[in-house]
Amino acid sequence: MRALRCSALALAVACIAASVARGQMAPQKPDVPVDKWTAKTIMLIGAHADDDALSHGTLAMLQAHGNQVYVVTLTTGNVGTQDPKLSRMQLAEIRRQEELAALKELGIPGDHYINLGYDDGLLEFEDRKAVVENLVRWIRKLRPDVLFAWDPGKNYQRWHKSDHRAAAYLAADAARAAMWRLLFQGQITQEGLKEFMIPEYMFYDDIDYQDENIWVDITGFVEQRVNAGSHYTSQFGPGWKNYNPNPTDEERKEMRALVRDTIRTRDGRPVEGFRYYRGLPDTLGK
Amino acid sequence: MRALRCSALALAVACIAASVARGQMAPQKPDVPVDKWTAKTIMLIGAHADDDALSHGTLAMLQAHGNQVYVVTLTTGNVGTQDPKLSRMQLAEIRRQEELAALKELGIPGDHYINLGYDDGLLEFEDRKAVVENLVRWIRKLRPDVLFAWDPGKNYQRWHKSDHRAAAYLAADAARAAMWRLLFQGQITQEGLKEFMIPEYMFYDDIDYQDENIWVDITGFVEQRVNAGSHYTSQFGPGWKNYNPNPTDEERKEMRALVRDTIRTRDGRPVEGFRYYRGLPDTLGK
Amino acid sequence: MRALRCSALALAVACIAASVARGQMAPQKPDVPVDKWTAKTIMLIGAHADDDALSHGTLAMLQAHGNQVYVVTLTTGNVGTQDPKLSRMQLAEIRRQEELAALKELGIPGDHYINLGYDDGLLEFEDRKAVVENLVRWIRKLRPDVLFAWDPGKNYQRWHKSDHRAAAYLAADAARAAMWRLLFQGQITQEGLKEFMIPEYMFYDDIDYQDENIWVDITGFVEQRVNAGSHYTSQFGPGWKNYNPNPTDEERKEMRALVRDTIRTRDGRPVEGFRYYRGLPDTLGK
Amino acid sequence: MRALRCSALALAVACIAASVARGQMAPQKPDVPVDKWTAKTIMLIGAHADDDALSHGTLAMLQAHGNQVYVVTLTTGNVGTQDPKLSRMQLAEIRRQEELAALKELGIPGDHYINLGYDDGLLEFEDRKAVVENLVRWIRKLRPDVLFAWDPGKNYQRWHKSDHRAAAYLAADAARAAMWRLLFQGQITQEGLKEFMIPEYMFYDDIDYQDENIWVDITGFVEQRVNAGSHYTSQFGPGWKNYNPNPTDEERKEMRALVRDTIRTRDGRPVEGFRYYRGLPDTLGK
Amino acid sequence: MRALRCSALALAVACIAASVARGQMAPQKPDVPVDKWTAKTIMLIGAHADDDALSHGTLAMLQAHGNQVYVVTLTTGNVGTQDPKLSRMQLAEIRRQEELAALKELGIPGDHYINLGYDDGLLEFEDRKAVVENLVRWIRKLRPDVLFAWDPGKNYQRWHKSDHRAAAYLAADAARAAMWRLLFQGQITQEGLKEFMIPEYMFYDDIDYQDENIWVDITGFVEQRVNAGSHYTSQFGPGWKNYNPNPTDEERKEMRALVRDTIRTRDGRPVEGFRYYRGLPDTLGK
Amino acid sequence: MRALRCSALALAVACIAASVARGQMAPQKPDVPVDKWTAKTIMLIGAHADDDALSHGTLAMLQAHGNQVYVVTLTTGNVGTQDPKLSRMQLAEIRRQEELAALKELGIPGDHYINLGYDDGLLEFEDRKAVVENLVRWIRKLRPDVLFAWDPGKNYQRWHKSDHRAAAYLAADAARAAMWRLLFQGQITQEGLKEFMIPEYMFYDDIDYQDENIWVDITGFVEQRVNAGSHYTSQFGPGWKNYNPNPTDEERKEMRALVRDTIRTRDGRPVEGFRYYRGLPDTLGK
Repeated sequence: MRALRCSALALAVACIAASVARGQMAPQKPDVPVDKWTAKTIMLIGAHADDDALSHGTLAMLQAHGNQVYVVTLTTGNVGTQDPKLSRMQLAEIRRQEELAALKELGIPGDHYINLGYDDGLLEFEDRKAVVENLVRWIRKLRPDVLFAWDPGKNYQRWHKSDHRAAAYLAADAARAAMWRLLFQGQITQEGLKEFMIPEYMFYDDIDYQDENIWVDITGFVEQRVNAGSHYTSQFGPGWKNYNPNPTDEERKEMRALVRDTIRTRDGRPVEGFRYYRGLPDTLGK
Repeated sequence: MRALRCSALALAVACIAASVARGQMAPQKPDVPVDKWTAKTIMLIGAHADDDALSHGTLAMLQAHGNQVYVVTLTTGNVGTQDPKLSRMQLAEIRRQEELAALKELGIPGDHYINLGYDDGLLEFEDRKAVVENLVRWIRKLRPDVLFAWDPGKNYQRWHKSDHRAAAYLAADAARAAMWRLLFQGQITQEGLKEFMIPEYMFYDDIDYQDENIWVDITGFVEQRVNAGSHYTSQFGPGWKNYNPNPTDEERKEMRALVRDTIRTRDGRPVEGFRYYRGLPDTLGK
Repeated sequence: MRALRCSALALAVACIAASVARGQMAPQKPDVPVDKWTAKTIMLIGAHADDDALSHGTLAMLQAHGNQVYVVTLTTGNVGTQDPKLSRMQLAEIRRQEELAALKELGIPGDHYINLGYDDGLLEFEDRKAVVENLVRWIRKLRPDVLFAWDPGKNYQRWHKSDHRAAAYLAADAARAAMWRLLFQGQITQEGLKEFMIPEYMFYDDIDYQDENIWVDITGFVEQRVNAGSHYTSQFGPGWKNYNPNPTDEERKEMRALVRDTIRTRDGRPVEGFRYYRGLPDTLGK
Repeated sequence: MRALRCSALALAVACIAASVARGQMAPQKPDVPVDKWTAKTIMLIGAHADDDALSHGTLAMLQAHGNQVYVVTLTTGNVGTQDPKLSRMQLAEIRRQEELAALKELGIPGDHYINLGYDDGLLEFEDRKAVVENLVRWIRKLRPDVLFAWDPGKNYQRWHKSDHRAAAYLAADAARAAMWRLLFQGQITQEGLKEFMIPEYMFYDDIDYQDENIWVDITGFVEQRVNAGSHYTSQFGPGWKNYNPNPTDEERKEMRALVRDTIRTRDGRPVEGFRYYRGLPDTLGK
Repeated sequence: MRALRCSALALAVACIAASVARGQMAPQKPDVPVDKWTAKTIMLIGAHADDDALSHGTLAMLQAHGNQVYVVTLTTGNVGTQDPKLSRMQLAEIRRQEELAALKELGIPGDHYINLGYDDGLLEFEDRKAVVENLVRWIRKLRPDVLFAWDPGKNYQRWHKSDHRAAAYLAADAARAAMWRLLFQGQITQEGLKEFMIPEYMFYDDIDYQDENIWVDITGFVEQRVNAGSHYTSQFGPGWKNYNPNPTDEERKEMRALVRDTIRTRDGRPVEGFRYYRGLPDTLGK
Repeated sequence: MRALRCSALALAVACIAASVARGQMAPQKPDVPVDKWTAKTIMLIGAHADDDALSHGTLAMLQAHGNQVYVVTLTTGNVGTQDPKLSRMQLAEIRRQEELAALKELGIPGDHYINLGYDDGLLEFEDRKAVVENLVRWIRKLRPDVLFAWDPGKNYQRWHKSDHRAAAYLAADAARAAMWRLLFQGQITQEGLKEFMIPEYMFYDDIDYQDENIWVDITGFVEQRVNAGSHYTSQFGPGWKNYNPNPTDEERKEMRALVRDTIRTRDGRPVEGFRYYRGLPDTLGK
């Protein structure tokens, strides 16, 4: 509440001093634990179909608990294959079907999957203003209570491979831009949208776990995560080099085992870790 | 039909030679006269609210004859005022209301007005690929039988002021790009759109009439044009320097007179002139 | 005056119809003949030092008649030499000195020469928004009564070599942008500038004379033009391939002869031709 | 020779005045007729495989007469098909093979075909500086006596569809840039190249013939042109909608007939028309 | 001094090895303590009016001690408000007045405030070369002994919200570019500027204090900082949501209290912390 | 091997979990120690001539051991001098000769030096897609077993001065892009290149040594490093401010001493340190 009363720099100064005073610089935590969330709108931004896979257990839980989950993917994933028989067009279609099948396992309806259609591997060369404006549009449309995104970094800019880098930074920039009525005014005057500030964030990462501050216990949603992940036939396992739309039973088994291997544990329980952040988007990397 | 059998350069060569042989290089004419068109989808691309005003008589006729008319405007028109009291936001909202009121006079429903939300006066500085992709999306969605657009020029590139220049050239480029399945594939694989080739074109212009080859008799639609045009209160007449949302009767009268003055005549009849073109978008400026 | 009451498209429609009705589409002429102009501010935009040379007779006359002449040059001219001994830096310095010497012959003070410092031969690759904003700033500062510029074309876009093309088009775009209070607002809120509309234009060209509509008799200013032009030692004549800061008497003579050869005549009198335009910048190429 | 003694604007002034005086503004003609050219290096710049097809008769003649012909194509042609079975990769490979087969008919060796690899339909969105630098590199490598290119326009900028527009304008810009030692210096200091000025130009066009000033009699090379053109199986005729790598005899016959139809005649003889230009690249569109 | 004898990489190698040998890698300290500085030129680069607020105590001290302080702000701050009644233009004007009032409290004259006029929230989308060139110009004009800027990071790139990110990185890039005579030569040949190397740096930050290595004791300047900060009526406190040009006494009191709360202490004394750096700009982030 | 079976995100998940399980997150080490490498192709990417100097001992060893070493430099180094007499062109030529002389000392042939010709100090303003494509071309041509490059950072993005920043990030992006057949297809369809994945990496840095995980003992190659480094006459030492193509004996001695000073030791032996990485380029910064 206080945060909303201050802006820009002054805000930084004022808020920080204030929060330091109150000891709020301790790792942030949600007021309501994640496993109690309900009736929230959840928006995940990723670069590729399967970037959501790191959060599948959590998304399955949220969907089961009466939240609305939306997945916004920037690229069509139309490049990342080692199978010499596939074209960009075919790969884009395969990736879409895989993603829809994965989301279905999580209980997320197909029309909650929004793909912005950029070419895989080339996202960093797109006009950044146009990409940010596109993301701002979806933030203002969906008005999420929580944004899941690649972690843009805490204190320093996190290193990601190129598409993930763009997805991480531009999601953060879009979260910030979305809250200002005087930015991207065309959306407001012509499309009936309103400015919107996302209040909470869950940043995911693939390898660098040092900035995580929250671990969601996904007991009860592990099978859904395994089921979902095993649909990415073209992305890893036997299908990466030799895509087979109808994997054999053995291949399916291998896929499932690979996904199961990716599940981390903490205190003996399956978890997904995130950097949780609450507050003005201005300081989400601080 | 023959046109559809040839491509790119070879096409140019083949088609032209063929058409010259048959004397088709004489000014093009639609098979069915414009005033007999019905059940067609019409799409107009302009830079500003009121760029359609040059065609209001024709659009009113087409709408009356059972065609579906859509107006796609690139900018919000949020700059062009001499009234020092107006802000960009206010002006954008005023221009939107004026346009909706004008279209209503023509019988065109409000949801047929699509504004892409770019800033007025800065369209040429936007990323051209992003603007073209946006227009391609709308062409593939609406699948128009006829495109109305600023004339990009015949043989040579026509001079327009900056926003009109972008609107003219990018509309032509988008018409071309829309027909190729392998361009902007994301729209096809992710949004369920299909490639589409616009077969007929009506290019409008404001002053340079030398390339016109068709004149639509708008007798019977003059009053609609006058009514529509007089809604652009902020664009000309007394409201340009001192905007008044509720013009006096005298001001309204002046507005109507100004619009009426813009109607051209030919052989004593009120007309709107265009450069009509039919064929591959590849050669629409030839 | 009427022009000022209408805007954008509507304006085009309204004004044109009106002017056609009154026969104003006949070639435009200034109310006061050029040789009677006095107390005006004149601004010339060119790409290279010496682009003003085509107008030297006229500029000398205007300066002599009590007008203030400013020359704004976009590039430093630091590329165009065939002398293998010169570096970019040296050439830029030489061109500056040549230009100042030429202007001095015309009576134009050195601080009326403004060079925006772009690299020669690369102007078209600069960010167009930044270049236009720069030109808008100078238009709003100098507030010229008349703009001299490369002709961007009438009806069609004139072909120029690359730097001239940018100079022609961007000067026209800047003239248009400068008049809108809501464009480049930073200049207005931070630098104390005000929007400004240039009312009259003199477009020059080097070879294509077909659009000229006014010829200024430069009798009485021929020697100044010859003197001025002969200072461009590095640009043509013997110095183009082998620059000599101190030309021999013979070389000077050759230079003078070359410049004298460039002076055109009409009805036996020395003239400089232009396309004169008066009105809204929106339609300066129409 | 005189041209070489003047530069930039001053040049324009000086040269023009001089040439007008001598009546050289009459349509330009080569000193040696095209059919007598020998031992020249010829460079053709096009956007797509088959852009050279408009000049195949002339190229066959030049190759036969002991000249070296090089074809530089900017895009891979990987978009322009109506066959839904083809991918970008397949189409690029097909177009390459077609082009090599066509050039072989003309006697031009395969290693004289240089494809710069840009994506079809997207050339205008590439960084213009990078494309120009690339073309400058090839001009400085090949050091052509004559450049064949899409006509960028005379006096005004010619309208072309988007890829052709880029090819036309950027070829002209590259011709100009290539002559300056101080532009793209990296090529000179690191690659052992030298600046180079192309002295003669043959501009081709597909439909708009009004600026042509030279017609090459291709009697004796008609069959080569027909043979060459009929290799573009994927570009027109039956293969445009349904590509068949091994056309039937009937299809081949149809292809040959289509190409033959494109050959223009003048005074009863088969010709290819061009706008010939000789002089500084600075004024090639004047 | 030694630093000036080495360049680029070799420099890094040579200098570092050398400095390591001499133990200079210990946290850097100025030769003369900050509170003894006098007759220095100080330049601060920020993104928004109020980015200097974090350093107001130090700036007040420096100004009082006979140094010249200049504040260069990149954007007009015309976006960051939650008051729905304000337009971009109004906000830009308010922010300018607030900044001038704040600087006045610090004793800094109004003409030492330079605002480059970019739009708030969109700085990262501006052409980076143009922004850097602009900053280089001001560095070469003001020739500061010390640069204050957002910390671009030590070892790693610091995360900042978007405008601050651009301001941090581009200030560092400009500091580096400014020292090379062969970069941005137009400024040197046309504007009479000379290359310049800034020798000392004070990097400020809002929240992440871990890289600070110097703390300026601002005892004696606390009231000036509070007075200055309380002028940012539109930026925080009650005016952020409901701007009131004439705050009530209570509102003023609240503002002052908020600013006072932001002052950090160290060993019981009010301080402002910085990362101090001295040396070549090449290694300011190392 | 396992890594090759997984892609994108899924890969990250799968591989990491797997490698963590096996304790592979311990600092990476090459299977074969660097001093046993033979018959490998080594490619180094740097921004300036002399960026390879940090690795000269290692490169000399590798060359001596029967490996092929290639040095790819992005810029010509044509800006970084404090000698006011040198032009960009002269400096580029000097830097090239210095680099060739240095490589000769290491036994690396002159045609293994590839300079991409970008301007020094401006690399970050070049079109990033074009630069990456250029680097991808060279990776696909040379097909290196090991890439040496500026360290783009581990976990976070490392801070480098501007040209080094571009070189570090774009080398990493190019390494990633090179492995995908569907990226930069023109190289594959038109130039006969094939996609290629670089398996091993040696990242060098100038000052920030904290991420190093491997130290190559260069005993036996120290003199070669000193000899090579002392050729960079224009880069440091007396020649930086006053370039002398023929240094005096004393100057040479000073140069050699400076280079010798830069050699680090570890456990009493001369070393060069690197961050070694093996695996998919997707995670080279993780």
